Amino acid sequence: MASLSINPNESSLKTLEIGLKKSLLSIMQNTFPESQLRQFAHNTFLKIGCSQEDATLAANVLLQADLRGIDSHGLARLSGYVRLWEAKRINSKPKIEIVHESPSTAVVNGDQGLGLVVAPKAMEIAMKKAETCGTGWVAVKNSNHFGIAGYHAMMALDRDMIGMSMTNASPLVAPTFSTERLLGTNPICVAIPAGKQPPFVADFATTTAANGKLEILQRKNEDAPLGWVQTKDGKSTTNAHGVKEGGALIPLGSDREHGSHKGFCLGAWVDIFSAVLSGANYGPWVPPFVSFLAPSDNPVGEGIGHFVGAMRIDAFRPKEEFKHHMDNWISRFREASTVDGEDRVIIPGDPEREQEAIRKKDGIPLNDKVEQDLRELGEKLGIPF
Amino acid sequence: MASLSINPNESSLKTLEIGLKKSLLSIMQNTFPESQLRQFAHNTFLKIGCSQEDATLAANVLLQADLRGIDSHGLARLSGYVRLWEAKRINSKPKIEIVHESPSTAVVNGDQGLGLVVAPKAMEIAMKKAETCGTGWVAVKNSNHFGIAGYHAMMALDRDMIGMSMTNASPLVAPTFSTERLLGTNPICVAIPAGKQPPFVADFATTTAANGKLEILQRKNEDAPLGWVQTKDGKSTTNAHGVKEGGALIPLGSDREHGSHKGFCLGAWVDIFSAVLSGANYGPWVPPFVSFLAPSDNPVGEGIGHFVGAMRIDAFRPKEEFKHHMDNWISRFREASTVDGEDRVIIPGDPEREQEAIRKKDGIPLNDKVEQDLRELGEKLGIPF
Repeated sequence: MASLSINPNESSLKTLEIGLKKSLLSIMQNTFPESQLRQFAHNTFLKIGCSQEDATLAANVLLQADLRGIDSHGLARLSGYVRLWEAKRINSKPKIEIVHESPSTAVVNGDQGLGLVVAPKAMEIAMKKAETCGTGWVAVKNSNHFGIAGYHAMMALDRDMIGMSMTNASPLVAPTFSTERLLGTNPICVAIPAGKQPPFVADFATTTAANGKLEILQRKNEDAPLGWVQTKDGKSTTNAHGVKEGGALIPLGSDREHGSHKGFCLGAWVDIFSAVLSGANYGPWVPPFVSFLAPSDNPVGEGIGHFVGAMRIDAFRPKEEFKHHMDNWISRFREASTVDGEDRVIIPGDPEREQEAIRKKDGIPLNDKVEQDLRELGEKLGIPF
Repeated sequence: MASLSINPNESSLKTLEIGLKKSLLSIMQNTFPESQLRQFAHNTFLKIGCSQEDATLAANVLLQADLRGIDSHGLARLSGYVRLWEAKRINSKPKIEIVHESPSTAVVNGDQGLGLVVAPKAMEIAMKKAETCGTGWVAVKNSNHFGIAGYHAMMALDRDMIGMSMTNASPLVAPTFSTERLLGTNPICVAIPAGKQPPFVADFATTTAANGKLEILQRKNEDAPLGWVQTKDGKSTTNAHGVKEGGALIPLGSDREHGSHKGFCLGAWVDIFSAVLSGANYGPWVPPFVSFLAPSDNPVGEGIGHFVGAMRIDAFRPKEEFKHHMDNWISRFREASTVDGEDRVIIPGDPEREQEAIRKKDGIPLNDKVEQDLRELGEKLGIPF
């Protein structure tokens, strides 16, 4: 078996998420130590009434996004959560409880809590069930935005389990052939432990491009590739602001000929598992993340929904055997022949892990707008940034 | 809630799989009653040594593909299974057994049996575990091609369960940035029961286009859209024969800018769940379906792998509540506003169900090459076609 061939400290930025490097260079920004941002997020969550434990957890979830290079889901969202709390759409002291269960399943009522807190607690329940039952699967209702899917699924890794997480989200995506925004970007994460190799962590929106990538283009006033966004009439457009102008994001696949109906299948699957199984709102009824848009006055469920799961590796085969073969799988794929101009095949989880190593050392860059937003938030709440 | 707005008998062919109508009109073919093809498949499986029960089951799986319009996975493959049996790569009298289990999981050794037989038996085990435990998840090793994923997942529907199935397959797909064929088209099916509405059945290859669609183009000597196939150097090509010339199929997304790394994530996830969890061959080691290509002489596991699962609806919430909301979900999406020129949003499972209604009535069209292949097979085995 090939030995570990990658050292995060030596890795080049080349393999990072599309546009990330360019965006870092081309917009004004300062860099902050992880500890400063974590403390600020923690203090903010305390200020809106979270317990010490919940504030720590919520801050950890946000910081993991910033560390892993998923800037759209980190501190950039902090003031948004506060505004939802101000609008009484987030309960900072939720009574999170199981409302239905079987040996390997549960439905959790998040009591309008922060998804950042509700989802990890649901994942704890899933892992506990997996301990006794082999697998555990928890559908969550009455929750809010849960941050990056990766945080929750990756909780399973240290326990030698496979972790899965998915969530529905504000409707921004049109099904194939439709002009209506009926689905969120509905991400899926699957986290699989390995042995000597780092884990396999696939964490992706079920759209052609995540909304965060569009936001980067919007800030830079650049066009989007065709196939990411459609106009209000359902025509593909390069207008990165198209969604705000009545258009929609497009499911993975970009058009029918290239499989957008499969991307629609994926987004629909996430929506149904997250919300129809749990009793949350689904499809166009999912409450928007932004506080200035009101939720439906005719809801079909409670809050937004998540679905998390854990599978104990040794419920299938001995752990060491499994890890040996995962290492072999990862080595074989990483060392595959590449097209001209590319160093290597990127294993799911590589770019985020490499970015985390860099940012833990060098700090977390925040663009000017986010920095200013956080300073204003700090002033409003009386917390030094 | 909107009432059921679709009647399979009145539906137009417009909504069927891309190219199906054109292919039906443009190539020479005859149409055969379902019963004739089912009997022929059954007799063929008996002839190679299957038990009555297994021959019936295998014929049912193949016929369901032909009825549902997935021509590439029906009788067109029958002679291929026979050739694998002749090459001693399929065991027609397998001892299918559980080799590892927990309350909600099992690993099944298919004993080189037909995947058409092994997978439904694994699904029965998953559903039995779901009865007692809420969910059941079975990884399968030492199996062969299992036909359409949809058959196995849909077994759960009548029991008010959600069914899932996936399988790895002969390596034909290059990961993003690679020139090597390391993954199969690795399909996923998720089947979800509804109430008055027909079930939601998403059954799709994790590539931009399934291999069957390419085969249709090859027979017609037509070009493929860019984004389906790459050359041996990894460049996108319209050559529908590109895979046979050293190229590869491309993961869902078509290129990095349009999310092919997400399609790679999906195919990799299927491969790992199907084979690394079970102890089957994975990635480039998966034995090819065709008998004239030898399996690796350095295998990393046994046969090919599947992963199937079942989740009891009432392990999450009362069945009737769930079905009410699934009906509402389906109605809302089906009745969404459409882009100009399209009648309606296609709910996953609609095209196949509509095709099944037509073919049950009018018979199953077989293209000339398949008909000739079956006649030759019948002559060789002494079975009237």
